[in-house]
Amino acid sequence: MAKKSSLKVILLGGLNEVGKNIMVLEKDNYIIVIDCGIMFPDDYMPGIDYLIPDFSYLKKNSSRIKALIFSHGHEDHIGALPYLFRDIKDCTAPIYATKLTLGLIKSKLNDNQASEQFIYNEINTDENLRIGPFNLKFFRVNHSIPDGVGMIIKTDVGTIVHTGDFKFDQYPIDGKLTEFAKIAEAGKEGVLALFCDSTSAEEKGYTLPERDVGKTLHEKFTQAGKRIIVATFSSHIHRIQQVLDVAKQLDKKVAIAGKTMLKTFKIASELGYLKIPEDTIIPITKIDEFPLKKIVLLSTGSQGEPLSALRKMSLNEHTRVQIMREDMVIISASPIPGNENAISNTINLLLKQGADVFYESIAGVHVSGHAAGEEIKMMLNLVKPKYFIPIHGEYKHRIQNAKLAGEVGMPVSSVIIAQNGDVLKLNENLCRISNNLTLQNIYIDGFGSGNTEDIVLKDRKALSRNGIIFITAAINSKKSEIIAEPDFILKGIIYIDSFGEMINEAKQLVKDLILRCFKNNLTNSSLIETNVSDNIEKFILKKIRVKPIIITKIINFNAN
Amino acid sequence: MAKKSSLKVILLGGLNEVGKNIMVLEKDNYIIVIDCGIMFPDDYMPGIDYLIPDFSYLKKNSSRIKALIFSHGHEDHIGALPYLFRDIKDCTAPIYATKLTLGLIKSKLNDNQASEQFIYNEINTDENLRIGPFNLKFFRVNHSIPDGVGMIIKTDVGTIVHTGDFKFDQYPIDGKLTEFAKIAEAGKEGVLALFCDSTSAEEKGYTLPERDVGKTLHEKFTQAGKRIIVATFSSHIHRIQQVLDVAKQLDKKVAIAGKTMLKTFKIASELGYLKIPEDTIIPITKIDEFPLKKIVLLSTGSQGEPLSALRKMSLNEHTRVQIMREDMVIISASPIPGNENAISNTINLLLKQGADVFYESIAGVHVSGHAAGEEIKMMLNLVKPKYFIPIHGEYKHRIQNAKLAGEVGMPVSSVIIAQNGDVLKLNENLCRISNNLTLQNIYIDGFGSGNTEDIVLKDRKALSRNGIIFITAAINSKKSEIIAEPDFILKGIIYIDSFGEMINEAKQLVKDLILRCFKNNLTNSSLIETNVSDNIEKFILKKIRVKPIIITKIINFNAN
Repeated sequence: MAKKSSLKVILLGGLNEVGKNIMVLEKDNYIIVIDCGIMFPDDYMPGIDYLIPDFSYLKKNSSRIKALIFSHGHEDHIGALPYLFRDIKDCTAPIYATKLTLGLIKSKLNDNQASEQFIYNEINTDENLRIGPFNLKFFRVNHSIPDGVGMIIKTDVGTIVHTGDFKFDQYPIDGKLTEFAKIAEAGKEGVLALFCDSTSAEEKGYTLPERDVGKTLHEKFTQAGKRIIVATFSSHIHRIQQVLDVAKQLDKKVAIAGKTMLKTFKIASELGYLKIPEDTIIPITKIDEFPLKKIVLLSTGSQGEPLSALRKMSLNEHTRVQIMREDMVIISASPIPGNENAISNTINLLLKQGADVFYESIAGVHVSGHAAGEEIKMMLNLVKPKYFIPIHGEYKHRIQNAKLAGEVGMPVSSVIIAQNGDVLKLNENLCRISNNLTLQNIYIDGFGSGNTEDIVLKDRKALSRNGIIFITAAINSKKSEIIAEPDFILKGIIYIDSFGEMINEAKQLVKDLILRCFKNNLTNSSLIETNVSDNIEKFILKKIRVKPIIITKIINFNAN
Repeated sequence: MAKKSSLKVILLGGLNEVGKNIMVLEKDNYIIVIDCGIMFPDDYMPGIDYLIPDFSYLKKNSSRIKALIFSHGHEDHIGALPYLFRDIKDCTAPIYATKLTLGLIKSKLNDNQASEQFIYNEINTDENLRIGPFNLKFFRVNHSIPDGVGMIIKTDVGTIVHTGDFKFDQYPIDGKLTEFAKIAEAGKEGVLALFCDSTSAEEKGYTLPERDVGKTLHEKFTQAGKRIIVATFSSHIHRIQQVLDVAKQLDKKVAIAGKTMLKTFKIASELGYLKIPEDTIIPITKIDEFPLKKIVLLSTGSQGEPLSALRKMSLNEHTRVQIMREDMVIISASPIPGNENAISNTINLLLKQGADVFYESIAGVHVSGHAAGEEIKMMLNLVKPKYFIPIHGEYKHRIQNAKLAGEVGMPVSSVIIAQNGDVLKLNENLCRISNNLTLQNIYIDGFGSGNTEDIVLKDRKALSRNGIIFITAAINSKKSEIIAEPDFILKGIIYIDSFGEMINEAKQLVKDLILRCFKNNLTNSSLIETNVSDNIEKFILKKIRVKPIIITKIINFNAN
């Protein structure tokens, strides 16, 4: 019998962060890609739209990519797909996803480019999917978006299980329980490696069921004396469903505020994931035709995003909705790390306009979509893998997830804390890190992109901390003359009382410096520029204890 | 009998934020100032050191300031005092504070300027303090720094109570209980208005006692197989005391890492607030002389601050301490909003170096220093004020505090949600907002300062988001000639593939624009500059969908 080839799992993203999830499986010249997400930047990356995975490895091996498979429709799992197709022009691998995920992917790709090259395949979770040496079985999971799946991937060297993003909800809104039996069956047959979501591994116990939020919403809706505004993630279809259902029960009308909310609302209802109760939805243009007590607004902006509907309302800049005293605002989401200030700000502004605001710290208006500690342990006990590889999370989340494995008795040697770029080599009864690809974090800003170690980001940070000074002058180096006086343009420099005085002093210093250069036979204008910049930097630092970027431009007329 | 003059309370800070606490009391030409703190900036204010209150009103009335009184020694209550003395040069009002607070104030003022003009008075909490029409009585409270007090201030129109920052700890580390009896006595005699800390008003129930942290520390210290590193606020003397005590019990040695930690350690132990157990402290230079298991490091950096000891350790840049596998790091603090990312980052880096890290989300290694809901209600029930004015907190915290007042039966009309700058007028049985002073948020950056609506901050934000482009050229407007070709300098602009091409196109466009100006007899260089900037802005936006700041400098030689 020929020796079996090993299975390679290449972790291209999602392991040093929450976001940018992507995993590559490779065997016998077949490559399949699981998920392809973006990540939102933190405050170390001013002005950046988002980050995408480094596709270099996939580009190099594009002809071998046989399938792009998606676990669910969140941006951190599907958002980078347009960039994959942008970077790998000859990619013709079919896309596999469940119905709703596929709908969201289609909408995303259609926004970006022509759709002829895309081949869409809807995943039927009752059927196996065979792609070369890979035999895939999908199991439904619960999450904060419907139609999420995990995957059982069989190969001749062993089976691996990928959880996707999951939690266990014992009575989910759509009635679709996590398919425990499929997972247990795989566990019984033997699993080589489990790749498991770590996002909420720090949380103890169990994540509360989504229906608990529905109960709180019902309570709040009953209490509300005037309008109700609920802000949540536009992809949180079950949350939206609960808002609609409670509104219907209490004979209220729901209007939608915010573009992305309208868009996913449309996709989800067309595909049957959102059941719109009769006589409940009204266009936002009609809200004034109903009594205040009848109105529910379903809005974007649960993260305090700058251009979202709720943010505009808080700033009194929304064209249709002016906040009134006693409007009830429910922020049905928890802050994504980094958004805390923006959300607090929005809450403060809404309160100042007289709204009554309910948000996570003071009311049970949100539950997480990710498994907490006990659920992860349950997953481990169902799958009983030989090896456990925490994915989806920062280092601290994955370390915590590894500890959970220890708590159910897995030996330390069976738990692999991998890094982005790690290549795992799997054989029968064996899984180890065999290599590491050097990856870059690629950022997207407008039409441009770069990597996050880029000088551009360093400059942006320096500019924002200390500002910039631009110095111009013109000289005639042949005649050793200054023919246009030094001029200073400042941006982002803080003022002191004696500001004008300081600039005059600095201008004189520039003249002195230029003349000294002439004296020393230094006539090359770029050398003079460096000399001026260095000295003015020292001068400014001494004067006002800040260190702006200094740029000097000396125009040299070499006429005799 | 002559009509009694009313009491004015001017709220100069701490009401739209957590920080910048300051309150002014005024009666019969006497002014007393309670607290004078700074606030740390959020990410909307890049590069700013901190914010201070607007002292304009105090400057205008400086001769009437009779006392500067402090509730406790945290930066958000004492940190702006050097700036008050800088702005009000003729201020000779004596400083009143309890022993430790006074020690911290002295150290702060000595760092900044000559000390002859400062008059220090130590508060004795057993004695009343009479300042003109004000009769002050101090009551000890519990907080995350020792020696905190609240104030009962009697005047002929009524009594007001100021809680300071407080919580109720039933068995505090220093044995000094909150002086409930004094508060109750004031309540019994009748209180016109209560000014109450709102920082933790969103939290339900009671804040856990400080000793609970001690228990957890003991547990962790016992488990630790190697070195222990505890990071906390340098001013959290009781936390530090518990670290010392547990170390002593377990026969470990404590070394200090971080300048501010060394400084407050020195002040607090000299003044007797820190009892250093015998044979426990060692200099950090000696840590290698003891077995790993004996070492406890007490470190700054619990907020992930860039230059702190813990941050340096996480980056492997600390000169004395290299993190080793199985070092136990305990972050004994909770994130101040805005610091979440910096802290997570530090934790991830420490974990990657092999340390075992315990922090708030996964371990009970911190409790708050502020009263939660039930404690605030208890304060209300002790004081039984006619009017209730939530202070110290963002709008949402103060709204929540107001709701607590409602829960103990205070009518809505007795609760005043004031703003920074509000002037309260108090008479017998009356308290109302009579006026609002327009205040500016003053920021400090190096030697300079400004207000936060400042164009400088807007520029910094714009610079950080989109970068800047400088364009230079020289012309002879008399001859309608371009005599130095346009030159582009870019900072913070992201790259696209065809970058060089775009800049060449832009240079040609600048030439065309200048020549068109000549054609239209537009020879004023500043008009040409505006024309160039506007058109290049549009060009760049179209090309790469970003909107940098564009600055054009055209040097005009008017020679014939």
